[in-house]
Parts: sequence; structure tokens; C-alpha cells
Amino acid sequence: MVKTRSQKIGLQAGELVFVGNKQRTKAPLITLIDYNEGSFEERDISNLNECPLYKDKQTVTWINVEGNAPEILGKIGECFSIHPLVLEDILNTDQRPKMQEFDEYVFVVLKMFSLHPKTKEIITEQVSIILGKTFIISIQEGLEGDIFNPIRERIRLAKGRVRKLGCDYLMYSMIDQIVDHYFLLFEHLGERIEDLEDAVLLSPTPKTLANIHNLKKEMLLLRKSIWPLREEISNLIRSDSDLVTDNTKLYLRDVYEHTIQVIDTVETYRDMLSGMLDIYLSSISNRLNEVMKVLTVITTIFMPLTVITGMYGMNFKHMPELELWWWYPMVIGGMVAISVGMLTYFKIKKWL
Amino acid sequence: MVKTRSQKIGLQAGELVFVGNKQRTKAPLITLIDYNEGSFEERDISNLNECPLYKDKQTVTWINVEGNAPEILGKIGECFSIHPLVLEDILNTDQRPKMQEFDEYVFVVLKMFSLHPKTKEIITEQVSIILGKTFIISIQEGLEGDIFNPIRERIRLAKGRVRKLGCDYLMYSMIDQIVDHYFLLFEHLGERIEDLEDAVLLSPTPKTLANIHNLKKEMLLLRKSIWPLREEISNLIRSDSDLVTDNTKLYLRDVYEHTIQVIDTVETYRDMLSGMLDIYLSSISNRLNEVMKVLTVITTIFMPLTVITGMYGMNFKHMPELELWWWYPMVIGGMVAISVGMLTYFKIKKWL
Amino acid sequence: MVKTRSQKIGLQAGELVFVGNKQRTKAPLITLIDYNEGSFEERDISNLNECPLYKDKQTVTWINVEGNAPEILGKIGECFSIHPLVLEDILNTDQRPKMQEFDEYVFVVLKMFSLHPKTKEIITEQVSIILGKTFIISIQEGLEGDIFNPIRERIRLAKGRVRKLGCDYLMYSMIDQIVDHYFLLFEHLGERIEDLEDAVLLSPTPKTLANIHNLKKEMLLLRKSIWPLREEISNLIRSDSDLVTDNTKLYLRDVYEHTIQVIDTVETYRDMLSGMLDIYLSSISNRLNEVMKVLTVITTIFMPLTVITGMYGMNFKHMPELELWWWYPMVIGGMVAISVGMLTYFKIKKWL
Amino acid sequence: MVKTRSQKIGLQAGELVFVGNKQRTKAPLITLIDYNEGSFEERDISNLNECPLYKDKQTVTWINVEGNAPEILGKIGECFSIHPLVLEDILNTDQRPKMQEFDEYVFVVLKMFSLHPKTKEIITEQVSIILGKTFIISIQEGLEGDIFNPIRERIRLAKGRVRKLGCDYLMYSMIDQIVDHYFLLFEHLGERIEDLEDAVLLSPTPKTLANIHNLKKEMLLLRKSIWPLREEISNLIRSDSDLVTDNTKLYLRDVYEHTIQVIDTVETYRDMLSGMLDIYLSSISNRLNEVMKVLTVITTIFMPLTVITGMYGMNFKHMPELELWWWYPMVIGGMVAISVGMLTYFKIKKWL
Amino acid sequence: MVKTRSQKIGLQAGELVFVGNKQRTKAPLITLIDYNEGSFEERDISNLNECPLYKDKQTVTWINVEGNAPEILGKIGECFSIHPLVLEDILNTDQRPKMQEFDEYVFVVLKMFSLHPKTKEIITEQVSIILGKTFIISIQEGLEGDIFNPIRERIRLAKGRVRKLGCDYLMYSMIDQIVDHYFLLFEHLGERIEDLEDAVLLSPTPKTLANIHNLKKEMLLLRKSIWPLREEISNLIRSDSDLVTDNTKLYLRDVYEHTIQVIDTVETYRDMLSGMLDIYLSSISNRLNEVMKVLTVITTIFMPLTVITGMYGMNFKHMPELELWWWYPMVIGGMVAISVGMLTYFKIKKWL
Repeated sequence: MVKTRSQKIGLQAGELVFVGNKQRTKAPLITLIDYNEGSFEERDISNLNECPLYKDKQTVTWINVEGNAPEILGKIGECFSIHPLVLEDILNTDQRPKMQEFDEYVFVVLKMFSLHPKTKEIITEQVSIILGKTFIISIQEGLEGDIFNPIRERIRLAKGRVRKLGCDYLMYSMIDQIVDHYFLLFEHLGERIEDLEDAVLLSPTPKTLANIHNLKKEMLLLRKSIWPLREEISNLIRSDSDLVTDNTKLYLRDVYEHTIQVIDTVETYRDMLSGMLDIYLSSISNRLNEVMKVLTVITTIFMPLTVITGMYGMNFKHMPELELWWWYPMVIGGMVAISVGMLTYFKIKKWL
Repeated sequence: MVKTRSQKIGLQAGELVFVGNKQRTKAPLITLIDYNEGSFEERDISNLNECPLYKDKQTVTWINVEGNAPEILGKIGECFSIHPLVLEDILNTDQRPKMQEFDEYVFVVLKMFSLHPKTKEIITEQVSIILGKTFIISIQEGLEGDIFNPIRERIRLAKGRVRKLGCDYLMYSMIDQIVDHYFLLFEHLGERIEDLEDAVLLSPTPKTLANIHNLKKEMLLLRKSIWPLREEISNLIRSDSDLVTDNTKLYLRDVYEHTIQVIDTVETYRDMLSGMLDIYLSSISNRLNEVMKVLTVITTIFMPLTVITGMYGMNFKHMPELELWWWYPMVIGGMVAISVGMLTYFKIKKWL
Repeated sequence: MVKTRSQKIGLQAGELVFVGNKQRTKAPLITLIDYNEGSFEERDISNLNECPLYKDKQTVTWINVEGNAPEILGKIGECFSIHPLVLEDILNTDQRPKMQEFDEYVFVVLKMFSLHPKTKEIITEQVSIILGKTFIISIQEGLEGDIFNPIRERIRLAKGRVRKLGCDYLMYSMIDQIVDHYFLLFEHLGERIEDLEDAVLLSPTPKTLANIHNLKKEMLLLRKSIWPLREEISNLIRSDSDLVTDNTKLYLRDVYEHTIQVIDTVETYRDMLSGMLDIYLSSISNRLNEVMKVLTVITTIFMPLTVITGMYGMNFKHMPELELWWWYPMVIGGMVAISVGMLTYFKIKKWL
Repeated sequence: MVKTRSQKIGLQAGELVFVGNKQRTKAPLITLIDYNEGSFEERDISNLNECPLYKDKQTVTWINVEGNAPEILGKIGECFSIHPLVLEDILNTDQRPKMQEFDEYVFVVLKMFSLHPKTKEIITEQVSIILGKTFIISIQEGLEGDIFNPIRERIRLAKGRVRKLGCDYLMYSMIDQIVDHYFLLFEHLGERIEDLEDAVLLSPTPKTLANIHNLKKEMLLLRKSIWPLREEISNLIRSDSDLVTDNTKLYLRDVYEHTIQVIDTVETYRDMLSGMLDIYLSSISNRLNEVMKVLTVITTIFMPLTVITGMYGMNFKHMPELELWWWYPMVIGGMVAISVGMLTYFKIKKWL
Repeated sequence: MVKTRSQKIGLQAGELVFVGNKQRTKAPLITLIDYNEGSFEERDISNLNECPLYKDKQTVTWINVEGNAPEILGKIGECFSIHPLVLEDILNTDQRPKMQEFDEYVFVVLKMFSLHPKTKEIITEQVSIILGKTFIISIQEGLEGDIFNPIRERIRLAKGRVRKLGCDYLMYSMIDQIVDHYFLLFEHLGERIEDLEDAVLLSPTPKTLANIHNLKKEMLLLRKSIWPLREEISNLIRSDSDLVTDNTKLYLRDVYEHTIQVIDTVETYRDMLSGMLDIYLSSISNRLNEVMKVLTVITTIFMPLTVITGMYGMNFKHMPELELWWWYPMVIGGMVAISVGMLTYFKIKKWL
């Protein structure tokens, strides 16, 4: 949860160091799309030398970086005059979702969640977006491929509104894409919760307990990333910056409501998981009760029988009944009667 | 809970796709009522071609759509210039209750709850209302028939205020109708809770536990729909839009108070259900105690008897008491005395 | 809790229907008091025909109605031009405490609590007050007699400030009277809680559990009525209406503080009751422990004895010790020694 | 908790009746100190006739009343024109801490806590302060002597700032004195909590449970008095009244921070006590587990032995092994082996 | 937790008395660094006589005091005209983190956390910073060496921005340094929590319980120090004082976000620890269940065997089966069959 942040202690603010899971870093991939309603251009720009050409061009210039590479970010930062603290935040994948307004651009950090196709673990990825007047820069960790592909496709085919509108609408499309993926995740989690619910009511095992605990922990971590998102988008909507137009704000309001719905879902799931723990505890107590009842029934039936057999095993000289031939079957009969009587009694008391 | 939202991932905002339980969709039914204090007209308008005629007419035009049909909504949207995002929200039955103000109309989404007549399950239905200057459009899922029938009846018979007042009063009547149904639902839930309460105190079974859990979950889901309603109506009351008159706001304040009362009830029910879980756990522990006492009593009485009988079953040569004829009845007597003594002791200790 | 509200479904707002416990309704009793510093008049006005005479008179006119009668309210409403929604609220005894300001009057709903003299159940009664410039109308359910008698007495005897001040001071006196009764109720509840506390620590029984649960539920319901009261009085104090003078607001601030104190008490009581449930559960677990210890002690002592007696009951030919005369007393002695040893051991381990 | 408030029901606001523990009242003691930077005068003024002389004197006049006497308060109220509601509040020792601003004076109610030297019970005492332009009146219940003695001493010796500054600084000194005493109380409570913590982890008894419960209850009551204090001092700081100077507000900010620290401590203690209850329950469950393990071990070892001895106690004619001399020692050996084996098994399973 | 605050009772505000752990105090160490972009001077100033020389110099003057010495603080206070309450707060190591603005300087109190290298206990240290126009005074308790060494090094080597910017940036660097250390602490705590989590799921012991409890308590105390930090830095950012420049505020916003992240982590850890307690309780109940099942299985198998052996140990004359040679092996066979049957039954019921 708190990652390898410690390596940054003692460093000055604004120094570009990657904080996060190193193993996940790969060779960075940079793509540029430049478009307006009429024109469209797409290219790979690995050396970033052409960056300044696009900076002041009045078309929408979208630079997408996959993978975290400090040097590349440094170059981009220089070209588009991005504040060093922003670049530092992009490299720190341990960032909280946030939105920061600057004079020339708006900086947005988001968390992208996806499910590992096999282990079904939740993979968290950081997506940073810098929205300028005529450019938009998006930086992904790039673990699960490029999630913005559907948007790119729409731009290429000039489908829908995206080519007609500016950078801010493109940013909205990205955020919307990410938030939509949350619903996918929660559909999966919802199914897991329903499975757990059945398990906890029908056949609770210590494994069930561990599962509930793990889901609760995942909820805790999801919550930590989703709550600030709400504030973030709300800030975007209320922003005075002329980088975000009123038309786009209407769309952002839509995303905002989705976010609230996601938050509602997280909270509901948490409540449900808490309730399940109570159910689990009750179920175990119930079972203990059942076990104890069996024990008590067994003890209650056989204890008197033991005493009876013991009694006629005593070696007294003067036990006249021992001589009677019908006493033995009678004793056996009595023992059966006691057993049957006890069983009936417990049946009536609903212990069996 | 999170429904089939995933099918929308990758789509552009504003594309009309129905999100929800497909099985519940039926052929859409469209009715139009046009009235003012003097005139009244009611008709089915399946092809929607006459829509534009009513758009600018100064009478109150009420178009009611039962069932979710993307194409029909598309036509209506075009005719009354409704924003695509609004139409999208109407089709998404997974919507949170909300209120959105636009220049030309006010958009309101509500949740309607009813009880399935047989299974007594809670059926949730989405009702969307678009309030314009001279028109009002209501879209229901239409699962349980048209809940606005009493209002329609009153309009037909020119009963009460409704014919004298404008579109906003009609909208108030609709919201009031829906909120009134909440009370019906909560009367039913209140009865179920009282039954559960008796069960949990008198004869708790694992079934009781499952029932408490289910009711708690239902409360959680109801809560999710009812809390935003409060804010929604409050927004309507504080709205600056001239679509909602001050007179109607007075009535909306009345509905607002009903909403708060409903919220109070949900919270009270939740608290009561939480309390019941504690009671349940305590009851089980109590029962375990009872069972254990029985076991202990049985063990305590019969264990010494077993030892006594065992003792006189020993095969020692020199056990002079075995020769005495009165020793046997005395031992039997002693055993009875021990049993009676123990029983008395446990009676005094209130274990029996 | 949610009463017979359902009967109102489908009715139009403002229709006068009594909602509440019908059995509690009785023939309505209407009294009128008209006074100022110099004059005083008191009379029964059953037919309400003289109402208009008092409406514009500059003296303080106090009309008190006991019992809920829709027709009478209708007449009063007409005479003093009260909004139909207000009259509807008065008849709905399922109302939340609230305060509503109108141009010509202020409408206040309060809950009055009293204890049933025999069953000690809490009786809830609704009191509505309409404060106008020169008149004040109070409507009680009238279950437990007229609680405003002390005020009436003071007016009659021209004792204290009440005759010198206007309608608003009279309203304050009424609210103060009602809030004062809350303290009576909480003194009683406080005693019950203290009794329960002793019970739960010394001798918890399932009955104690049920009592805690019931008190908790009562707290829940009281809380629902008392929290809105706070907001209500606070609204009265901050009201811009010239119906409530600054001098009276000073007195209302006093009542406001009493209300906060009552709320504090409710919350404290709730916390205490929650704590008691934990204590109860712990006590039961403690007892179970005690029972189990007894069982274990008994088993541990007698099991070895059983084995010993069993051993010498075996029928082996070659058991030379059976022939020794001192072996038998030695075995008996050994058994006693084992018992005593075990008991000492358990005493040291503090199990006994 | 709710004291004898009921005696006030039916009385008019502003009537001077003492509400509280009557036994604690004693003959009132009135002292007057009049000073400025140069002059100093101290005297007992029992008959209060000289009051008016000091009212308009430009020096700081401090009247301190110990013990609650309605008549004396009445006289003081008349002399300094104090509102009857203020006097009523002073006499009601069941008051919440509060601060009220009037045109001519500021009224402050505080709670003083001290520990009974022997029983270590918490004694609550009400201190009321009326701050005027040139006078300050303090009313204590006077249970534990005069807590303002250190201040008085400083005034007498003209030590520190107090003689140079006005009435408001004197009021600050009083409040500071009272809040400082809270730290004393919490040091004591902190020690008790630490003792309880050790007890609950090492040797929990039902007595520990009762102690936790009592401390929790004390926290609840302390909290009720300390939370409003915060708001009260904050109101003093933000007050527009010219009775409190900016310089004094700087000192009040200091007290304000102490108050927040006290609140933090109360909340931390509450959390710790809640945690302890969980620990207690866990400890009991742990112990039950231990007891049950012992029982199971005993039963598991001796049950098979009983069956073996029983087997060779059977009276079959044809049991050839009974004739073999080495069979008996072998059976005994087998029984020992079973016991040792079981014990080893349970040792490995960590049950012993 | 509440330390030796009691020694201050009765003292006047502003008297310089050290409150805290006396043993931790050591001989104070005072260092002065004076620099601007071009010049740099570093020296020890034990007698503080040269203080006034630096006061009005336009360079950045940084005085760092390690160890709490009332006299030295007195001198510094005099030289830089610091308010006595500020000096008092510096000496009181029991201070809450806070920020106070004065006309000439800003006063900031922070808590520094470090881990004791051996015992791994959390050491809390108070750091106070006074920020003036041209000077900055930092006071540490100096327990774990000077934590500002990396900053000092950067100033010496003129590395990074620090030499180019003013006092406020130096203050930011200090706060940043302290907050960065929080991450170190939480990495350690996170590891401890993960270890505990494994322990609680796999092999819970009473020791685990004590560990959870201790961690929870540490969280409670950390929380108490970290929550006010947030408000403090937020106040610095929103401060109107011209001592903190807009450029520095940008950096402070960065620290502010770190603080929120730390708070998030504390809350998450608390939730996780609470969850663990539930898991612990469930695990113990589970184990009890296991133990009880073993007991029940043993009892159920051996009880019938005991009765059977007892039966054939009875001394009846007429038990013809005793004569049959094949009856004995048949009984033994029957007993084995019963045992195997029972075991199979319990295997199927998943009790074994």
C-alpha cells in the first residue's frame, strides 16, 4: 500500500524519480495524434524533437505515453513548460487521484482498475492527463495495453462528436472510458460477493472468512482511490479555467454522476461485507450449538445405560434378581426403553 | 445491483442503448393528454408524428410513455429538443435519482417501488419526468401498470386543483404519487421487521438470521435510492428556473418532508435490524449455555454413580462388604440419594 | 411506526383525512381565551360561528382544540385563512416536528410525550400551533388531558409576564411546557436504564436482553421526534417573521438549549444501552466459562476413577494383587487421593 | 444524569429555583476584590448593600459567590441588571456549558471537574461567570474549596500581568484555571485505563468488565460537558463584543487549543475502552478454548481405557487370553502406551 | 499520553517551563546558518549574543536549536520579539500540531516520528518552526540527531533551488522532510500489519491479540498528531501573510497532498486492524468448534462401546450367550464395526 516511497526521502521537490513497482516498467511508447474536424495525422515520435512544432498549432495535439520514463517526461515537460512538481507527480504512481489547475494547463491524475485475466486480482494503473489549450498529454503505465484505443478509433474514423470538439472533450472521453471500466470491475466484485453470501449462509468455512476479509481489504483500497475522484471531477466542473468549456462540463456532470454511483456501490458492498462477517460469526455459533446438542444427546442416553450395566456387574453376594432368568431381558428392554424415551424427548425439544 | 452496464463500455456519450433487465421491456405504450381549465383531449399517439403540433400549444400537454424503446425516445427527443445525455439517462434504468435543470426544461429521475403481489419481493421501476413550459413527458418502465392512473382520473373529471394549475403542479402530483407508494412499502417492511423481532426473541433459527440479513440488504438498496431523492426534491424547491412556480414549491415542500420521513424510517429500520443481529447472537449464546448446563448436570449426576458401580464390580478377594446382605440396597439407596442431592443443588443454582 | 398512512394514497394534497390511531380520537373540545394586559375572557365555542369576531381583534386570542376533527379544522382554516396543506398536516398525527413560515402566520408541529400511568408505556401525542399576529390556535390530540392548564391558570390569574406580552410569548410558553415534560420522561427512562445496568452486571437473563432491546427501540423512536425539534426551534429563533419578537427569541434560545440537552441525553442513553448489550454478551460468555469449568472438573476427577475400578473388575486369572487384603483399601485410598489432588489443583488454577 | 429538573415543570421562565444536588448546597460566601494596576481592595460583602458603589467604578471589581443562594443572586441580578434567564441558568447546575452575549455583559457557564480525594469519584461543579465592562461576577458551587485562589494570590501580590489588564483577562485566567484542572483529571483517568489494559490482557475477570463499563460511562458524561466547551470558547474568540479585547483573545486561543487537546484525549480514551471490551471478549473465548481442550484431552485419554478395562471385565466363558499370565501386564502396558501416545499427540497439536 | 502537564497548574500563561519527558532533554546545541544566493556562513552560537546582528540582515538566517532549554528560548524570544505564549508552546512537547500567524512571524509546531532502531518503538519528537521575514528559527528535541542535515547539506553545496529562494522555501523543505519520514514509518507499520494478518488467519494466539491491540493504540496516537497537521498546512496555504510566497504555496500544496495520503493510510490501517479483531474472534470460535467436534466424536464412539462391555460384565445367571464361544469375537467385531461406522459417518458429515 505504501510503496517504495522511502527512496525519495532527502531528495529535493521536483526531482524526477520513478516511484512504484519497477518490474512493471517497460520501454516507453510515444504516439502523437494531431487532428481537427478536417485534418488527421498519426505518428510515432520517439525522439520528441518535433514536439515544439505541435505546441502552438491550433489543432488538437494528443501525445500519449505508455510506460514511465523520467527522461522522456523531462523532455516533454521542457517543451510544454510543465511545472517540475507535475512531472514528479506523474512518475509517482503512488499518487492520490487529484486535479490541479495551472494558468496554461490542467493536470489530472486518475486510477485505472482492471482484473488480471487469470488470477482475477485487481491491477491498479495510474493515468495522468495534462490538458492544454491546443494539446493534451496522457501518460499511462501501459500494463494492460492502451485503454484509449476505442477513442483513437473514433478519432480516426471521425465518428461521433470527438473530431468536432476540442481538447477538453477528448479529456472527458478519456475519463469516461476509465470510469466505465469501474463498472466492469464492480460487476465482477458483485458476483464474488453474491457467491460469498451463499457460502456464508449455507456452508461457512475458515476459507470463507479469509475471502470476506480479502474482499473487505480490496474495498478499502478501491475506496481510497475512488473517493478523491469525485472531488476531482467536481473541481473540473466548477473550474473557472477557460480550458474546460461549458459544453464539456455537461458531459463531465454525467461522469460525475457515474462516480457517485460507483462510490455508492463501494459503500453498499462494504456494508454487505460487514454484515456477512456477523452472519459468519452467528453461523459458527449456530454450528457449535448443533455439535453441543449432539454431544449432550449422546451423553444423556449412554450415561444411564453405563450405570445400569455397572450396577449388575457388581459382585454383591445378595443380589437376588441376578438369579431370575427374566431379569436380564427385562434390563435390556429397560435400556432400550430409556434410549427410545430420551430420543423422543430430544426430538420433541427439537434438538435432533 | 450493478446491472449490465458493461455493454456500454466503449460507446460514445449520448448513444441510446437500453441498460437494465431486458426481460422486463415490453412494447411501448404512448398516451397523450392535453388540457387546460376549459379543454380536455386524450389520445393514443403511436407514431408520434403529431408531436410538434402540441409542442408550442399553450395548454398542458402530457405525454406518457410506458416501456423503454430507444427509437421512440429518439423521436421525442428530437421533437422537444432534449439533450442526448438526458435520453441516454432515461434508457439507463440503473440511474440514481437526480434532478437536472436545463434552459428549456427540467429533468427528473425517480425510483418507484412496489411489492410483487406473490413473492413479496420489492420491484424497482424507474420513472423519468421531463418538465417543459407547456409540456410534460413521463417515461415509466411500466412493469406494474400505470401508477399515474389516479392523477389521470382527476384530470379527466376536472377534480381538484390539477386542471387549474400548470405543468409543474402535474409533476408535483406525479412525485407525490410515487413517494406515497413508499409508505405502502414501508408499512409492509415494518410488519416483516416486527415479525422478525418476535422470532428473534422467542425462537431464533438460522432461517431468522437469513431473513434479517435479507431485510438488511433490501434496506441498503432502498437507502441508495431514497437518499438522493431528498437532495433532488430540495434542488427542485431551491431551483431558480421559472418552470417551477412558488405555489408548486409549497406543495413540493410537503413532499420533501415526506421524503425525510421515509429516510428517517429507513435509518430506524436499519438500526433495528442491526440491533436484532446482536439479539440473535445473544440468544444463540444463551441457548448454548442452556445446552451446556444440561450436559453438565447429566455428567455430574451419572459420573459418580459409574464409579460406585465400578467399585463394587472389582474382583478383590477381600471385600467384606460384598458379603453383607444390606450393603447392596444401601449402595442403591446411596446412589439415589446422590442423584437427588445433585438435582436439588442444581435447582438451587438455577441451572434447571 | 409507519401508521395507516396508506389510506391517503391517491388522494389529492390538502384533503382533510385523519391519519393516526382512530381509537384515540374523541369528541373535540374547543376553548377560547381572549386577553390582554387589562381584559380577560374565557369561553367554550363549539359552533365556531363567533370565530371571525376574534380574528381582527387586537387582543391575544387563543383557540385550543382537543381531539382531531376534520370538519372543525376545516371551519377554523376558513376563518383564519390557513393553507389546506397546514390543515392536512395537523390531522396527520404521523407528522415529523417541523416549523413552517407563512406570510400571515407561523405553523409549528411538536410531539408531546407522556408515560401511561399504569403500563409505563410512552404515549406520543401531536401538538400543532398556529401563531398569527393577534391569534394563536393550538390543536392537541387530548389523550392525557390538557397539558396547557398551568399556562391557562397563569393567564387567568394574570401571574407573571404572560398577560403583558403577545401571542409569541404564549407560543413560547407552550413549547417550553412540552419540552419540560421531556425531562420528566427522561428521568423515568434514566431510572430504568440504571436498573437494567445493575441487572446486566449481576444477573443477566434473556428477559434483560429483551428489556435492553425494547429500551433501545424506544430511544430510536424518541430520537426521531426530538432531533427535528432542535432544527425547528432554531428556525424559529432565526426567523425573519415579525410574528416572533426579539424578546421572545431570548426565551426561545433558552428552550433551544433544553432541547440540545435532551438530545445529548438521548445520545448518551443510546451509547449506554449499546454498551450494555456488549456487557450482556460478555456476561453470558463468562457464565458459559463457569459451566464448562465445572464440567471439566467433574470429568477430570471421575474419569480416572472409572478406569481404576474398571481395571480391578477385569477377569484375568493372574492378577496377584486381587489376593492381597490391603490392596483394596489402598485402591480406595488412592482414589480419594486422586480426587483430593485434582480438587487442589483446580483450586490453585482458580477454576473453583 | 437528568437531575431533579422535574420540580421546575409548570414554573414560569426566570423564576429562581435551585436545581441540583441539594445536599451539596452550603451557606453562601461572598467576597469582593476591587483592583487596578495601582490600587487593591479585598472584603467580604455579605449583605450586598455596597454593590451599587462598585458598579460604575472604573476599576476591576470581582465578586465571587460560593454556594447557590437564590436570594443573593436575585440581589446581584438587580444591582447589575442581569436578565432573569441568566440568573435561572446559574441556579440550574444541570446546565450545559455555554456562552451568551448580551449588550452589557457576557455570560459563561463552565464545568469544573475534580476527584474526590478518597473514593476517586469525579465531582462535577458548575462555575458561572458574568463579565461586564468594569465588573466580573463568578458563581461556584464551592464543593472543593475556592479553585480561584491562585489567581487571587497573584492579584494580591500584583504578580504577572493580571493587575495591568482588565476584566476580560481575569475571566481568561479563570477559564484557564478550570481547563488546566481537566489535565489533572485525565492524567488520573489515563492511569486507570492503563491498569485496566494490563488487567484485560493478563487476567480478565467480570470485575474488569464492570470497571471498563464504568469508565466508559464516565467518559460519556465528561464528553457531554467538554464538547460544548469548545464551541463556547470559540464563540468568545469570535465575539464582536468589545468586552473581550484582542489581546485577551490571543490568550483564549491558547485555552481553546487546550480544550481541543482535552477533546482529543476523551475520544482517544473512548476508542481505547471500546477496544478493551473486544479484547475482553476475545480473552474469555480464548479461555473457554483452553478449558475445552483440557476436557477433550481428558476424555480422549480415559474413554478408550474405560472400554479396554470393560472388555476384560466381560464374563464370557471363552476368553482364552484371560488365562495367559502375561496378558494382564500387557494390557496395563498397552493402556499406559495409549495414554502416553495421546498426550504426545496433543502436545504436538499444541493443545497442552 | 497526557504527560506531566499537571506541574503547570496554577502558573500564569507565558511562564517558560519545560513539559515533557525530562530524561530526554540534553545540553542544547545551537547552530546558525546565514545565506543568500551568493554568500554562505555557518557557525555555532552558544551565547546568542550575536543574535541581534542577524535579525535585520536581508539574508536568510536560520537558527537551529536542538534540546529544550528555557533560558535559551527566553533569549531568542527577546531578540526576535516572540510572544511569550509561543515560547511556552515550544517548551510544551505535549503540544498539538498547529500553525499560528502573527504580524511579524508565523509559528508552526510539527510532530516528527521515528522508529527506535532496536525496540522498534515509535519515538515522537516535537519540531517548532518560527518563520520571520529574514530569519527562521527551528527548535527540535534532538533525540535522533538532526533530521535537517540533508537540507543543510544542500544549502552548503548550493544544490537545487534552496539558495535562490527565501525563508519560506526553507520552511517548506523542513516540513517536507518531516512528512517524508512519515512514509518511512508507515512502510514499517504496513509490514507489521501484513505479518499480523497472516498470523491472525493462520495461527491466532493471545499474543496476536495483544499485538493487534497495541498497533491499534499506536494508530490512535499517530492519528491524533497527523489529523491536525492537515489543517495546519492547509492554513499555511490559505494564509494571507506575505511571509509565505505564492511560489512556496505551490510546494506546500504538494506536502498537503502527502499529508492527506498519510491520513488515508492511517484510516485504512485502522479499518484493517478493526477487521482483524473480528477475524481473530471468528478464528477462535472456529477452533472451539474443532475442539468440540473432536470431543463429540470421541464421546460418540466410545460411549456405546462402554455400554456394550458393561452389558457383558453383568453377573446375571441366565445369560446364555456368555456360553457361546463365537459370541465374544462377534461382540469385539461388533464394537469395531460400530467404531468404523461412526468414523465413516463423521467423515461424511465433514467433522473430521
